[in-house]
Amino acid sequence: MDRRTFLSGASIAAATVATACGDSTSTNTQTGSPASPAILRGVKQLRMVTTWPANFPGLGTAANNVAAFANAASGGSLDVRVYAAGELVSAFEAFDAVSEGTADMYHGAEYYWQGKSQAFNFFTAVPMGMTASEIMGWVEFGGGQALWDELSAQFNIKPFQAGNSGHQMAGWFKREINTLEDFRGLRMRMPGLGGSVLRELGAAAVTLSGGEIYPALQSGAIDATEWVGPWNDLAFGFYREAPYYYGPGFHEPGSSLAVGINLDVWNGLEADHKAILKQACWAANNQCLAEFQYQNALALDVLVNQHGVQLRAFSDAIWDRIGTISEQVVADTGNSDAMTRRVFDSYLGARNAMRSWDRISEMPYMAQRERVLGG
Amino acid sequence: MDRRTFLSGASIAAATVATACGDSTSTNTQTGSPASPAILRGVKQLRMVTTWPANFPGLGTAANNVAAFANAASGGSLDVRVYAAGELVSAFEAFDAVSEGTADMYHGAEYYWQGKSQAFNFFTAVPMGMTASEIMGWVEFGGGQALWDELSAQFNIKPFQAGNSGHQMAGWFKREINTLEDFRGLRMRMPGLGGSVLRELGAAAVTLSGGEIYPALQSGAIDATEWVGPWNDLAFGFYREAPYYYGPGFHEPGSSLAVGINLDVWNGLEADHKAILKQACWAANNQCLAEFQYQNALALDVLVNQHGVQLRAFSDAIWDRIGTISEQVVADTGNSDAMTRRVFDSYLGARNAMRSWDRISEMPYMAQRERVLGG
Repeated sequence: MDRRTFLSGASIAAATVATACGDSTSTNTQTGSPASPAILRGVKQLRMVTTWPANFPGLGTAANNVAAFANAASGGSLDVRVYAAGELVSAFEAFDAVSEGTADMYHGAEYYWQGKSQAFNFFTAVPMGMTASEIMGWVEFGGGQALWDELSAQFNIKPFQAGNSGHQMAGWFKREINTLEDFRGLRMRMPGLGGSVLRELGAAAVTLSGGEIYPALQSGAIDATEWVGPWNDLAFGFYREAPYYYGPGFHEPGSSLAVGINLDVWNGLEADHKAILKQACWAANNQCLAEFQYQNALALDVLVNQHGVQLRAFSDAIWDRIGTISEQVVADTGNSDAMTRRVFDSYLGARNAMRSWDRISEMPYMAQRERVLGG
Repeated sequence: MDRRTFLSGASIAAATVATACGDSTSTNTQTGSPASPAILRGVKQLRMVTTWPANFPGLGTAANNVAAFANAASGGSLDVRVYAAGELVSAFEAFDAVSEGTADMYHGAEYYWQGKSQAFNFFTAVPMGMTASEIMGWVEFGGGQALWDELSAQFNIKPFQAGNSGHQMAGWFKREINTLEDFRGLRMRMPGLGGSVLRELGAAAVTLSGGEIYPALQSGAIDATEWVGPWNDLAFGFYREAPYYYGPGFHEPGSSLAVGINLDVWNGLEADHKAILKQACWAANNQCLAEFQYQNALALDVLVNQHGVQLRAFSDAIWDRIGTISEQVVADTGNSDAMTRRVFDSYLGARNAMRSWDRISEMPYMAQRERVLGG
């Protein structure tokens, strides 16, 4: 899913809300528990704008978790307040708002900022790219964070991983896709780099906001759509209009969510607040991945066993073509400019190294488990 | 790997060390940063015993992270001190020490406590069991934590997930394993439930501590050994004595590490300290999984391209038998008693639900990526 258009209808920033937040630092008296004789400390208020509707399952709730975790750990000396898309600024103003200091931090997906630099795509997901644990490995231990810090610092932002959707499905189709010919003229909702791949297959990749998808499927304006995975897709009811659910997907194999903090705000934080925010992001990342893993399983059962959804997978011939095109589309993106090329080189090297490990470990383990235990 | 025997030579508790720690709560004056007008708060000292040698890569460092994260986030009002196995109590005294309050918390692997209850196996790993993200999903969102809380409360302990090794390899073999017959009489180091499966295959599963493995391979006392994965295995140099490296493994598909906190200590903590410790565990879990994912990839490259290690996989016929035996061994374990049966039922239901999701998502995605992009 590309949440850009889903959120494009979000209301414009209400300047009055920003004003109502007051100064981001105020002094407050906290009443400590009996073991704490006295705590007198300034309360640091941080306004976190997000690219999600309020409490949006998995994604908006990851943002809520970052705030709730940080506030609880700080014992009240941090007061991170979450603003849904449109409350303080619109979804796609979040980056600029944080860059300029209108807001203190954002929670979103980095590929929304590809207009600033194509390099941001690699910190969310790219076609035929990294799985969830792979992007965690690359960013945290494979040099990704240093490059991301350098990239985001150009925009006065300090970034952290703060959520992961896990694998995203190829999507919902009204008719079966059996051969490459079936993509010709197919009208499918798929934004971003995945859409670029679809166009090379001869499809008409279209961009629709979340709320526009169902009516478009119903009217026949589109023949297919991708969204996220069973948990989020079930709620939209796409299965009623497009009974064939194709997986795995190729375009977002483990989308990372991110927090970006205004760099001046970050540099001005006390050491414990820095530690709290960083750990809140990592803890939220952990819980988000776990929640998608479990909730997708429950929702898939409902889709298949209560709604009669037909599961389908693309043929090897289709995957061959998707793979070739994806590598080219991603390479073209990765060669956009010098900074993006450094990110792309690091990403590709790490992906291929981790592929070698996955190839002999979790991937064939799951395959043998399925083969032996059956469906 | 079962770290039990690896650590069995750890020295006995030094009571003097315990005494030297003094009271676990003392009052201290912290000098706040300039933005904090005054912080006067008791420093809560927590002694964390572990089942690992000091700074043991991935596992011991996960324990270090829990402590470092908690201490940094608390701004000094928490002082979690890490004790390697043998420093305060031996590795296998860690559970009792925390249960009785000799120590405040432990970091280890729950299957070490299977002598207390067989149910603890399910909170680390079992043969043909859950992958890393699956056990995260079950514990955090599928009812696992509530059962775990109930189980551990019987021993006056509050548990959290606090690390994951990811997939563990089948291990190192002096000779190729081509048929089920090749297991007959094979002397292999594999403790725990994996060892029980091996015995059903006709092998002599033996238990050796970590330091004993290499000499045993060298002398011919054993023909094969499992340990963890490329990152940890490389350091031991097993490749010099047993050139065939078999993967995937069947016995520990995503081993979860845990923190256990004395329940009286936990209940007595202030709310912010509870939040800090819980989030430190989740953040450590996130970082541990990411680090194993990346470091295993780097180490595998060294093993194959610098040391000429031969990668091998068990045949489908071997996997068929391993699968059948594993399900029986795990069911026998799961039916040990009423509490264990409840944990087993919850585990099995969640595993099978998540298998249905994995089957159409990350597993076939990785398989297509390998097929299309090649090795």
